[in-house]
Amino acid sequence: MAKDQKPQRPDPRLPKGFRDLEAVEIRAGERMLATIRAVYESYGFEPLETPAFEYTDALGKFLPDTDRPNAGVFSMQDEDEQWMSLRYDLTAPLARYVAQNFDRLPKPYRRYQTGPVWRNEKPGPGRFRQFTQFDADTVGTDNVAADAEICMLAADTLEKLGLAGKYVVKVSHRRLLDGVLEVIGLGTSDAGDRRLTVLRAIDKLDRLGPTGVRALLGEGRKDESGDFTKGAGLSAQQIDVVMGFLAHPVPRQAGDPGAQLLENASFAAAAADLAEMRRLFDAAGYDDTRIRIDQTVVRGLEYYTGPVFEAELTFEVKNEDGDTVRFGSVGGGGRYDDLVARFTGQRVPATGFSIGVSRLQAALAHLDDGAARAAHGPVVVLVMDKGELPAYQRLTATLRAAGIRAEMYLGTSGMKAQMKYADRRGAPCVVIQGSDERARGEVQIKDLVEGSKLSEQITDAKSWREGRPAQFSVPEADIVAAVRSVLDRYR
Amino acid sequence: MAKDQKPQRPDPRLPKGFRDLEAVEIRAGERMLATIRAVYESYGFEPLETPAFEYTDALGKFLPDTDRPNAGVFSMQDEDEQWMSLRYDLTAPLARYVAQNFDRLPKPYRRYQTGPVWRNEKPGPGRFRQFTQFDADTVGTDNVAADAEICMLAADTLEKLGLAGKYVVKVSHRRLLDGVLEVIGLGTSDAGDRRLTVLRAIDKLDRLGPTGVRALLGEGRKDESGDFTKGAGLSAQQIDVVMGFLAHPVPRQAGDPGAQLLENASFAAAAADLAEMRRLFDAAGYDDTRIRIDQTVVRGLEYYTGPVFEAELTFEVKNEDGDTVRFGSVGGGGRYDDLVARFTGQRVPATGFSIGVSRLQAALAHLDDGAARAAHGPVVVLVMDKGELPAYQRLTATLRAAGIRAEMYLGTSGMKAQMKYADRRGAPCVVIQGSDERARGEVQIKDLVEGSKLSEQITDAKSWREGRPAQFSVPEADIVAAVRSVLDRYR
Repeated sequence: MAKDQKPQRPDPRLPKGFRDLEAVEIRAGERMLATIRAVYESYGFEPLETPAFEYTDALGKFLPDTDRPNAGVFSMQDEDEQWMSLRYDLTAPLARYVAQNFDRLPKPYRRYQTGPVWRNEKPGPGRFRQFTQFDADTVGTDNVAADAEICMLAADTLEKLGLAGKYVVKVSHRRLLDGVLEVIGLGTSDAGDRRLTVLRAIDKLDRLGPTGVRALLGEGRKDESGDFTKGAGLSAQQIDVVMGFLAHPVPRQAGDPGAQLLENASFAAAAADLAEMRRLFDAAGYDDTRIRIDQTVVRGLEYYTGPVFEAELTFEVKNEDGDTVRFGSVGGGGRYDDLVARFTGQRVPATGFSIGVSRLQAALAHLDDGAARAAHGPVVVLVMDKGELPAYQRLTATLRAAGIRAEMYLGTSGMKAQMKYADRRGAPCVVIQGSDERARGEVQIKDLVEGSKLSEQITDAKSWREGRPAQFSVPEADIVAAVRSVLDRYR
Repeated sequence: MAKDQKPQRPDPRLPKGFRDLEAVEIRAGERMLATIRAVYESYGFEPLETPAFEYTDALGKFLPDTDRPNAGVFSMQDEDEQWMSLRYDLTAPLARYVAQNFDRLPKPYRRYQTGPVWRNEKPGPGRFRQFTQFDADTVGTDNVAADAEICMLAADTLEKLGLAGKYVVKVSHRRLLDGVLEVIGLGTSDAGDRRLTVLRAIDKLDRLGPTGVRALLGEGRKDESGDFTKGAGLSAQQIDVVMGFLAHPVPRQAGDPGAQLLENASFAAAAADLAEMRRLFDAAGYDDTRIRIDQTVVRGLEYYTGPVFEAELTFEVKNEDGDTVRFGSVGGGGRYDDLVARFTGQRVPATGFSIGVSRLQAALAHLDDGAARAAHGPVVVLVMDKGELPAYQRLTATLRAAGIRAEMYLGTSGMKAQMKYADRRGAPCVVIQGSDERARGEVQIKDLVEGSKLSEQITDAKSWREGRPAQFSVPEADIVAAVRSVLDRYR
């Protein structure tokens, strides 16, 4: 059994769908989250943090994404055999928290929360099993002004992140769709599957255009690859109602195109909500280019009960296949009136919005032309003489005390390895004190950025050296000013 | 089966050992983490984030806390039946990360990481199953200057958090203890249990004093309740060696008390490391009151291989039993030279320090005399007339645009409920615009803090009202200045 006695070394790897984040991404993420947090705070939302685990029965299985209804959760049994799950979003824990603390919370209760969520599903490109959300919710009011405010919050957040002119917050209403379905005779729940087929067809308007949607509402559609998708089997007349609904702005009064839909109570109530929201948007200066009523938005059908929102970035990027596409959704939300009722039986209306943090960060990174990369590493104090560690440590401490990010080289290798280390760390400069410099009470500052420019531009080396010396000596007492003069070159 | 048909409502509660964090605690925590992060950045450490899950074989079972050797981890099987676990600390994921990315990392590699860790163990008062750590590690050098720097980092961090004069970083060395054990003949691993008993006895010096430790090194000790703890069974001569070691500073040269221990190679190497660290501390201005060599520190015996550190807060608090005790440890660490070797077979020395975030935050909260509580909520704009929502929304947006945290009341209740809401939110003032004010183009500002003082101090109401009116009207255009004048009262 010699084979078994050989120590088995584990392979250093992560489970699929998980990833490490490194400095550049972490710092960009922190800046972004700080901006979002500042906007949410200015709106009066309060922070909340819930733990990663909830009891599975308290969490429910109420995933908002209709296209992933079977998305799994990570679950395990506690020592008393009760099932616990890792949160799959931040809304279900909010529902538990509000139900648990209902009496002592102000109403409406307004909170924001950010943190990782986990989904035990098949990972793919850009789809991870741990990702970060940033949510804001207003709980305990059915005032449509709360929905309107969430949309303004989303718009303000995107503006503060530098996305002015590059986004739109689209607003629709679940009951508009209910109304349309009722009008075409699919209002009852026994029409379940066909209802879903109709809604999925509507959801594809952006991608397939009216002709494609019409086919999916009718007999079905054959795509370019020849695959056939069975349609909802609606009659021509039913299809005309749906397509008419999609083609014109949501009617507000008799005479508007499609105004007969207003005879349906659900539709009329939704149209009134949207008209009130539009009035609030206009009064607050959010025009159609920032927040737009758009009835083609279909979101979380089993989940939302009133207005629904989708924040889209409108600039174009190449997708994985090399096609040019709109960047698309970075967040969404809506009104959900039945979530707390699971616990208390009491109807507590709520409305909220969730940002997909990684996706939004990817958008900002896409627009950022190198600012993140320009951030440099610490100043590195080289160790020329191991007997003089305290002296190098003191130089380092002097720089830090002056607010300069600095470190003494802590390895045990020689000069060449130390220079390579400083280079890998992205150090703007190194501080060198050999025995000669020490005898004269001086330090040498070597500018690594200039230095690498010099080696790239040999022909012009003389003028560079004259203008900005890449290496120079100063009295030890002037180390802070000298290092600052180098840092100032790269701001 | 009528009973089964009744909908089962889940109880809104958290699994034991988990908790929610609310606004005051979250904000204090963020301030603290920002301070720690700034110090770590100034030292040149880079941030890293690893995910919650690791493969169980990659994580190992290497808990550093000797008093909880059987502490469990949360584990579950992935879809391909490989076991995954939630990280129980931030060091094991670091080891996996370094092993995985070894070739491209600068050496030494210096990173900090903060985030939750999970332990599947019995929760108790102040002991949670999810808690936050903040770690810094220097990987890839056996230079004792790296250990010294970690201690300075800990000291600087505590100073920046306002704990100057209230902490000490204690430093010892694993091989000092190895040397003492070798000298008394317990140097071989077959003395395992007795070695542990000796080390546990040393660890109790603070609590039991020399007499108690002496008993535990010998036959055993009966405590106040009459319970007997079996001792290590050392001879009087062996006990004298151990007690002599504890009684005097670590010897550096012949002539120091206990200098015969220097004849042991392990002990001598450790004493030399500590002497070098002391030299670095002194040169950098960290005297004995901030960083102290203290050979009574016993930490992570199965884990650390060189210097060990413990950051203690020295002020006194009442414990759960009402006794006055030192606040005690808020973090610790040391050198561990064999962790990456699990993956690669290659010895990669490392040294690090971990802060227990909740415990440190509890210390800061204990010292903070109310600053956190004084933070106030948003200004609340009351809704006196639902038809005028856009006007109230505009007033709110005006305040926010001026950098004032503000919200419009989003519920649907009347004036009295709105005032109660503003009170619960901790609003410094409310903005009121009824039809009279609107007709005059004015708003009323009602100072809630003054208001509640007024109601408490009826006798002195006149003078308060004259000095600082609790309610006053201003032209709508002056709303920002008027609200600021109220906020300025409570800075």
